[in-house]
This record gives sequence, C-alpha cells and structure tokens, in this order.
Amino acid sequence: MERAIILAASAIGAGLAMIAGIGPGIGQGFAAGKGAEAVGRQPEAQSDIVRTMLLGAAVAESTGIYGLVIALLLLFANPLINLL
Amino acid sequence: MERAIILAASAIGAGLAMIAGIGPGIGQGFAAGKGAEAVGRQPEAQSDIVRTMLLGAAVAESTGIYGLVIALLLLFANPLINLL
Amino acid sequence: MERAIILAASAIGAGLAMIAGIGPGIGQGFAAGKGAEAVGRQPEAQSDIVRTMLLGAAVAESTGIYGLVIALLLLFANPLINLL
Amino acid sequence: MERAIILAASAIGAGLAMIAGIGPGIGQGFAAGKGAEAVGRQPEAQSDIVRTMLLGAAVAESTGIYGLVIALLLLFANPLINLL
Amino acid sequence: MERAIILAASAIGAGLAMIAGIGPGIGQGFAAGKGAEAVGRQPEAQSDIVRTMLLGAAVAESTGIYGLVIALLLLFANPLINLL
Amino acid sequence: MERAIILAASAIGAGLAMIAGIGPGIGQGFAAGKGAEAVGRQPEAQSDIVRTMLLGAAVAESTGIYGLVIALLLLFANPLINLL
Amino acid sequence: MERAIILAASAIGAGLAMIAGIGPGIGQGFAAGKGAEAVGRQPEAQSDIVRTMLLGAAVAESTGIYGLVIALLLLFANPLINLL
Amino acid sequence: MERAIILAASAIGAGLAMIAGIGPGIGQGFAAGKGAEAVGRQPEAQSDIVRTMLLGAAVAESTGIYGLVIALLLLFANPLINLL
Amino acid sequence: MERAIILAASAIGAGLAMIAGIGPGIGQGFAAGKGAEAVGRQPEAQSDIVRTMLLGAAVAESTGIYGLVIALLLLFANPLINLL
Amino acid sequence: MERAIILAASAIGAGLAMIAGIGPGIGQGFAAGKGAEAVGRQPEAQSDIVRTMLLGAAVAESTGIYGLVIALLLLFANPLINLL
Amino acid sequence: MERAIILAASAIGAGLAMIAGIGPGIGQGFAAGKGAEAVGRQPEAQSDIVRTMLLGAAVAESTGIYGLVIALLLLFANPLINLL
Amino acid sequence: MERAIILAASAIGAGLAMIAGIGPGIGQGFAAGKGAEAVGRQPEAQSDIVRTMLLGAAVAESTGIYGLVIALLLLFANPLINLL
Amino acid sequence: MERAIILAASAIGAGLAMIAGIGPGIGQGFAAGKGAEAVGRQPEAQSDIVRTMLLGAAVAESTGIYGLVIALLLLFANPLINLL
Amino acid sequence: MERAIILAASAIGAGLAMIAGIGPGIGQGFAAGKGAEAVGRQPEAQSDIVRTMLLGAAVAESTGIYGLVIALLLLFANPLINLL
Repeated sequence: MERAIILAASAIGAGLAMIAGIGPGIGQGFAAGKGAEAVGRQPEAQSDIVRTMLLGAAVAESTGIYGLVIALLLLFANPLINLL
Repeated sequence: MERAIILAASAIGAGLAMIAGIGPGIGQGFAAGKGAEAVGRQPEAQSDIVRTMLLGAAVAESTGIYGLVIALLLLFANPLINLL
Repeated sequence: MERAIILAASAIGAGLAMIAGIGPGIGQGFAAGKGAEAVGRQPEAQSDIVRTMLLGAAVAESTGIYGLVIALLLLFANPLINLL
Repeated sequence: MERAIILAASAIGAGLAMIAGIGPGIGQGFAAGKGAEAVGRQPEAQSDIVRTMLLGAAVAESTGIYGLVIALLLLFANPLINLL
Repeated sequence: MERAIILAASAIGAGLAMIAGIGPGIGQGFAAGKGAEAVGRQPEAQSDIVRTMLLGAAVAESTGIYGLVIALLLLFANPLINLL
Repeated sequence: MERAIILAASAIGAGLAMIAGIGPGIGQGFAAGKGAEAVGRQPEAQSDIVRTMLLGAAVAESTGIYGLVIALLLLFANPLINLL
Repeated sequence: MERAIILAASAIGAGLAMIAGIGPGIGQGFAAGKGAEAVGRQPEAQSDIVRTMLLGAAVAESTGIYGLVIALLLLFANPLINLL
Repeated sequence: MERAIILAASAIGAGLAMIAGIGPGIGQGFAAGKGAEAVGRQPEAQSDIVRTMLLGAAVAESTGIYGLVIALLLLFANPLINLL
Repeated sequence: MERAIILAASAIGAGLAMIAGIGPGIGQGFAAGKGAEAVGRQPEAQSDIVRTMLLGAAVAESTGIYGLVIALLLLFANPLINLL
Repeated sequence: MERAIILAASAIGAGLAMIAGIGPGIGQGFAAGKGAEAVGRQPEAQSDIVRTMLLGAAVAESTGIYGLVIALLLLFANPLINLL
Repeated sequence: MERAIILAASAIGAGLAMIAGIGPGIGQGFAAGKGAEAVGRQPEAQSDIVRTMLLGAAVAESTGIYGLVIALLLLFANPLINLL
Repeated sequence: MERAIILAASAIGAGLAMIAGIGPGIGQGFAAGKGAEAVGRQPEAQSDIVRTMLLGAAVAESTGIYGLVIALLLLFANPLINLL
Repeated sequence: MERAIILAASAIGAGLAMIAGIGPGIGQGFAAGKGAEAVGRQPEAQSDIVRTMLLGAAVAESTGIYGLVIALLLLFANPLINLL
Repeated sequence: MERAIILAASAIGAGLAMIAGIGPGIGQGFAAGKGAEAVGRQPEAQSDIVRTMLLGAAVAESTGIYGLVIALLLLFANPLINLL
C-alpha cells in the first residue's frame, strides 16, 4: 500500500506539472500573432522577424519543457519509490 | 486495491494534463486572428504571413503535445504500475 | 470494487480533459471575429483571409482534439482496466 | 454499489465536460459582435462577412460539440459500466 | 442507497452543466452591445446588422443549449439509473 | 436517508445552476452601456438602437433562463426523486 | 437528521445562488458609467440616454432576480422538504 | 444536533451571499470614476451627470441588496429551522 | 458541541462576508484615480468633481458595509444561537 | 474541545477577512499612479490633485479597515466564545 | 490537543492574511511605473510626482500592513489561546 | 502528535504566505517595463526615471517582505509551539 | 507508511512547483511578440533588439528555473526523507 | 508518524511557495518586451534602456527569490522538525 500511495501521488503530480503548459501556449501564440502582423507590414524583413520570434518562443518554451521533464521523471525514473 | 489506486490516479492525472490545452488554444487562435487581419491588409504578402503564423503556432502547439504525451503514457505505457 | 474506482476516475478524468476546450473555443472565436472584420475591410481578399483564418483555426483545434482523444480512450479503449 | 459509483462519477463527469461550453460561447459572441460591426461599416459586403463569421464560428463550435459528445456517451452509451 | 448516490450526482452534474451558460451570456451581450453601437452609426443598415448579430448569437447559443440538454437528460431521461 | 441525499444534492445543484447568471449579467450590462453611449451620439436613431439592444439582450438572457428552468425543475418538479 | 441535511443544503444553495449577483452588479455599473459619460457629452439627450440605460439595466437585472427567486423559494417555499 | 447543522449552514450561506457584493462594488466604482471624469469635462452638466450616475448605481445596487436580504433572512427570520 | 458548530460556522461566515470588500476597494480606487486625473485637467471644477466622486464612492461603499453588518451581526447579535 | 473549534474557526476567519485587502491595495495603487501622472501634467494643480486622490483613497480604505476590524474583533473581543 | 488545533489554525490564518499582499504589490507597482513615466515626461516636476506617488503608495500600503499586523498578532500575541 | 499538527500547519502557512509574492512580482515588472520605455524616450532624464522607479518598486517590495518575514517567523522563531 | 506519506507529498509538491512556469511562459512570449514587432519596424536594429529581448527573457526565466530546482531536489535529493 | 506529517507538509509548503514565481515571470517578461520595443525605437539609447530594464527586473526578482529561500529552508534546513 505504501508504494501505491507514492505512485498515485506521482501520477497526480505529473498531471499538475503539465498545467504549466498554459503559460507558454498563450505566450507563444501571442508571439506568433505579433510576428504574422509584423511580417504583413514589412514582408522584406520576414527572415529577421521570424528569427526573432522563434528565438523568443524557444526561450518561452523552456518552462513547458521543465514541466515535461518533471512529469517524465515522475513516470519513468521515479526516484521517490527507491527512497521507501 | 493498490493497483486500483494507482490506475485511478493515472486517469485523473491524464485529465489534468489535458487542461494545459487551454493555453495553446487561446494563443493559436490569437495568432489565427492576427494572421487573417494581416492578410486582409497585405494580400500580396499572404504566403509569408501564413508561413510565419504556422511556424509560430507550431511552436505554441508543443506544450499541448507534451500534455498529450504524458496523458498517453499514463494510459498506455503506464510505468508506475510496474513499480509496485 | 477495485475496477469500479478506476472506472469512476476515468469518467471524472474524461470530464476534466474536455475542459481544455475552453481555450480553442475562445481562440477560434477571436479568429472568426478578426476574420469577419478583415473581410469587411477588403472584401476582394476574402478567399485569402478565410483560408488563413481556417488554417490558423485548424491548428488551434488540435489541443481540443487531443482532449477528445484522451476522453474517448478513457471511455472506449480504457487501457487502465487491463492493468489491474 | 460498484456500478453506482461509476454511474455517479459519469454524471459528474458529464457536467464537467459541458463547462467547456464557456469557451465557444465567449468566442462566438465576440465573432457575432465583430461581424455586426463590420456589416455596419460595409453593408454591401454583408454576405461575405456573414459567411466568414459563420465559417469561423462553426470551427469554434467544435470543442463545444466534443464536450456534448463525451457527455452523451457517458449518459447513453456508457462503456465504462461494461468494463466492470 | 445505490440509486440515491447516482441521482444525487445527477443533480450536482445538472447544476455544473448549466455553468456553461456564463460563456454565451457574456458573448451574446458583447454582440448586442456592438450591434447597438453599429446601428447607432449606420441606422440605414439596421436590418443587415441585426440579422448578422442574431445569426452570430444563435450560433453562440448552441453551447448553452447543449448544457441545457445534458441537464434535462440527467433529470428527465436519466439513462444512468437504468444501468444499475 | 436516501431521499434526503438526493434532495440535498438538488438544493446544491439549483444554487450552482444560478451561477450561470453571472454571464448574462455582465453581457447585458455591457449592451446597456454601449446602447446608452450610441443613443447619446445619435439621439435620432434611438428607437433603432434600443430595439437592437433589447433584441440582443433577449438572446443573451436565454442561458440565464435555462439555469432558472433547471433550478425550478430541481425544486418543484424534481424528477430524480421518482426514480428512487 | 434527514430533514436537517436537506435544509442545511438549502441554506448553502441559497448562498450560492446569490453569487450570480456579481454579474449584474458589474454590468449595470458599466452601464451607469457609460450613461453618465454620454449625458456629459450630450446633456440635451439626457432623457433618451437615461431611458436606454435603465431599459438595458432592467434586462440585466433579470438573472440577479432569478437568483433571488431561487434563494427565496429555497428558504420560504422549500418544496424539497415535502418530497421527503 | 439537527438544528445545529442547519444553523451552521445558514451562517456559511449568509457569508457566501455577501460575496455578491464584489460585483456592485466594482461596477459602482466604475460609474463614480466615469461620472467624475464627465463632470470634469462639462461642469455645467453636473446635475444631469450625477443624476444619471446615481440612477444607474441605484439599479446596480439591487443585487447587493438581494444578497443582504437573503443573509438577513438566514440570520433573523430563518424559515428553514421551522421546517425541521 | 452543537453550539460550538454554529459559532465556528459564524466565524468562518464572517470572514467570507468581508471578502466582498474586494469589490468596493477596486471600484473606489478607480474612482479616486479618475477623479485625480479630472482635477488635474480642470482644477477650476475641483469641488464639482470631488463631490461627484465622493457621491459615487459612497454608493459603492454600500455593499462593503452590508458585508460588515452581516459579519458584526454574526459576531455580536448572533441570532442563530437562539434558534438552537 | 468545543471552545477549541470556535477559536480555530476564528483564526481562519480572521485570515479570510484580511483577503479583502487585495481590493483597496489594487485600487489605491491605481489612484496613486493616476495622481502621479496628473501631477506630472499639471504640477501647478498638485495640491488639488493630491487632495482629491487622498480623499478618494481614504474612502477606498474603508473596506480594508472593515476587514481589519472584524479580524481584531475575532481575536481580541471574540464574542462567539461567550455564547457557548 | 485542543490548544494544538487553535495554534495550527492560527498558522494557516497567518498565511491566509499575508495573501492580501497581492493587492498592494500590484497597485504600488502600477504607481511606480506611472510615476517613472511621468518623470520621464516632465523631469522638472520630479519632486512633485515622486511625492504624490509615495503618498498614494503609502496609503495603498495600509491593507498590506493590516494583514501583517493580524499575522503577527496570531503568532506573537495570540489572544485566542487564552480564551480556551 | 499535538506539536506535529502545529508544525505541519506552520509549513503550509509559510508556503501560503509566499504566494503574496505574485503581486510585487507583477507590479515591479510593470514598473521596470515602463521605466525602460521612459528612458528610451528621454535618455537625458535617465537618472531621475530610474530613481523614481526604484523608489516606487522599493515600496511595492514591502508586502513581499512582510510575507517573507511571516514565513521566516513560522519556521525559525515559531512562537506558536511555545503556547502549547 | 511514514516514508510513503513524505514521498507522496514530495511528488505533489514537485507538481505544484512546476505551475510557476505559467508566469515565465506568458511573460517571455510577450517579450518574443514585442521583439518581433520591433524588429519588423527597425530591421537595422535587429541585433540590439534581440539582445535586449533575450537578456530580459533570461531574467524572467529565473523563477521557472527555481521551480525546476525545487522539483528536482524533491525528487532526486529529497532531504526530507533523511529527517525522519 | 509525527515527523512524517511535518515533513510531508514541508514538501507541500515548498511547492506552494514556488507558485509565487508566476508574478516575477509575468512582470519581467513584460519588462523584457517593453525594453526590446524601446531599444527598437532608440537604438542609440540601448545601454541606458537595458540597464534600467535589468535594474527593475532585478528588484522584481526578489519575491521569486524569497519563495526559493523559504522552499530551500523547508527542504534543507527544516527548523520545524527540531521543534518536535
């Protein structure tokens, strides 16, 4: 039963960690919209705009990836169960 | 009973993980709206605008996919149940 | 009783997963409004605007579909119950 | 008692799934307002504006329909009860 | 007692399903305000504006009606109780 | 005791269903403000503006009425209690 | 004890139903502010503006009154207690 | 003990009902700010602006008063306790 | 123990009732800011602006006072305890 | 134990009552920002602007003080404990 | 055990009371930003702007201090424990 | 066990108190952004702008520090445990 | 069982800590959008804009990393389990 | 068991404390976006803008660091466990 409680909490924790994805999703979508708007205004600067947008979105991705990493660790390399 | 608690928590966790989809949904919709607006202003730059919009939306998709991956793992490749 | 707990959690989890639909609903509605506004300004660019809007909305749909997929899996191909 | 727990959870889950309707409701209402505004500015482009608005709103409807489908499945074709 | 739990959950679920009405309420009110504003600017286009506004609001109504349908089904044609 | 649980859940469910009234309240108030603003700008178009505003507000009222109907049904024509 | 549970749930439900008052409060206050602003701009159209504002606010009041009705019914004409 | 549960629920319900006051508070404050702004622009229309503002705020007050009424009824004329 | 449950619920209810103060706090602060802005633009209309602002803020105060009244009644003139 | 439950609920209630401070904090900060902006535009009207801002902020303070009063009463002049 | 429950509730209550700090934090930061903007426009009015900003921020600080006072009282001069 | 409940509640309370940091974080970031914008417009007034921004941000910091103080007191100088 | 409770709480705590990632995700996405917009306006200043954007985003990343650090510590270097 | 409860609460508390990171994340991202925008307008003032932005962001960082400090203290220098 002890192991079951830890593993059940890990499953819930993995789900909670993924909620962090709301942030990057809103932020990167804002960036995509602003980027498309900017390209529409200066099509000749497209490559510069897209590069800037992707660079910024890549940084914004990070916290989503952190959440994924924690969730994967909780599922596949669950270190807590070894501490029991 | 032990396995049941873990599996029930996995089902709840999979549902929680999908809530992350609120973010990309709002963000990509903002991008789509801004893209349509920009195309309406410079129809001649349509392909550039659409490419930028899709590129940005593809990045914004990522956290939604992370949530899907975690949910699918919890359902089909549930590693927690093997740790019991 | 064990199976019942898993199946009850699956029903709750399916409901939680559908909440992700709030995001695409708001986002695609924003896109529809911006698209209608743009068509009103440049009716001659209608086909381009609508194509861009639908392309963006199709991407925004994805996280809603992910939630649907997880909910359907929880209901019809519930893999958790086989792990018991 | 086992069946009762699953069925009670299905009723709660169906209610949760309908909450997704908040999103399309806000989004489509935004689209309707923007469409009425655009028609007011270019009444001669009315059919184009309305077609764009309805097309976008139809896409935004989808996640609301997903929630309805899951709720109806939970009520009328509840597959979970057969897994007991 | 088993039937009572299902029926109590159905009552709660019906209440939850009605919360979806927040979305169409806000959205259609936005549409009404924008429509009144547009009529004030172009009174000669009133019939076109009102038709567009009502068309859009009718679509936005849908998710509220879905919630009503699920709530009525839970109350009057509760299929869950037959599954016991 | 069985009946009591269903009836208590009905009272809570009726209260939850009324919360949907937040949406129409905000939306119709927005419509009223925009309508008053429009009348202030074109007093000669008052009857048109008010008719449009009331038409839109009447549609927005619907989800609030749905909630009222469900609450009244839960209180006065509670069908659940007959299913026990 | 059975009656007590129903009556306690009715008291909580009445409190929940009043929360719907947040919506009309915000909406009507918005209408009042916009009305005062419009009167300040066209004092000669005051009676028209005030009539429009009050008409719109009266409609917005409705969901607040629905909540009051349900709360009063729960307190003074509680039909649930007769179903026990 | 039965009476105690009802009375405790009444105290909680009275507190919940007062939360509705958030709405009128925000709305009337918005009206006051817009009114002060309008008076600052047309001091000669002050009496008209203030009358409109107070009229609108009086309507917005209503849902707050409904909450107060329900809370006072729960405390001083608690009808539920007589139904026991 | 019965009295204790009622009195404990009264303390929680008094705390809940005070939360209504968030609304007037935000609203009156908005009014104060708009008033200061208006005075800065027309210092010669200061007394009119301040009078309007205070009048509006006094109305907005009401729901906060309602909450205070209910909280004080719950603490000092708790009528519920006499109903036991 | 009876007294302990009441006193514990009083401590929680005092904490809940202080949450009302979020409202005045945001509102008065808005007033301070608008006041500083107005002073920057008309430094010669500084004393008038500051007086208006402080007057409005003093009113906005009231609900925060109400919360403080209820919290202090719950702590130092707890009348509930005498009702036991 | 009785004292322990009160003291544990005091610790939770102190934490809840500090949450009120969200309000002044947002508000004063808004004031700081507006002040910096105003100083950038009229550097010659800096001392007046800063004085106004600090005066307003000092008032906004008050509810945060109220929360601190209640928390400190709960920790160091806990009067509830003497009522046991 | 008594001491354990108090200490566990202190740990939770310390975590709750830190949540107040959301406010200063948003507010000071707003100030930083407005300050950078102002410096970009009047680089010659940089020192004045920065001084104003830091002064305002220092005041906004206060509620975050209050939360830190309460959390540290709960951890290191926990006075509640001595009251047991 | 004692170790299991601590480890289960650690898994939940790690999931809660990742929720902090919502903030940087929204903020950095805003930065990316503003950066792309600015590059679109002054392509010749691209390197300066991108450097500023990345510098700001790197600072905003910090709180997301703090959450990751705490989550990793809870999982891999859980110091709490040694205190048992 | 006593120590386990305290340590489990510490893990939850550490996770709650990290949630404060939402604030600085949003705020600093706003600052980064505004800074990039300002640099795009006056590239020659880049060093001044960046310095102001970083100074402001450093202050905004503080509440995130406070949360980290409390979380680390709860994990590595948990003083509560010594009070048992």
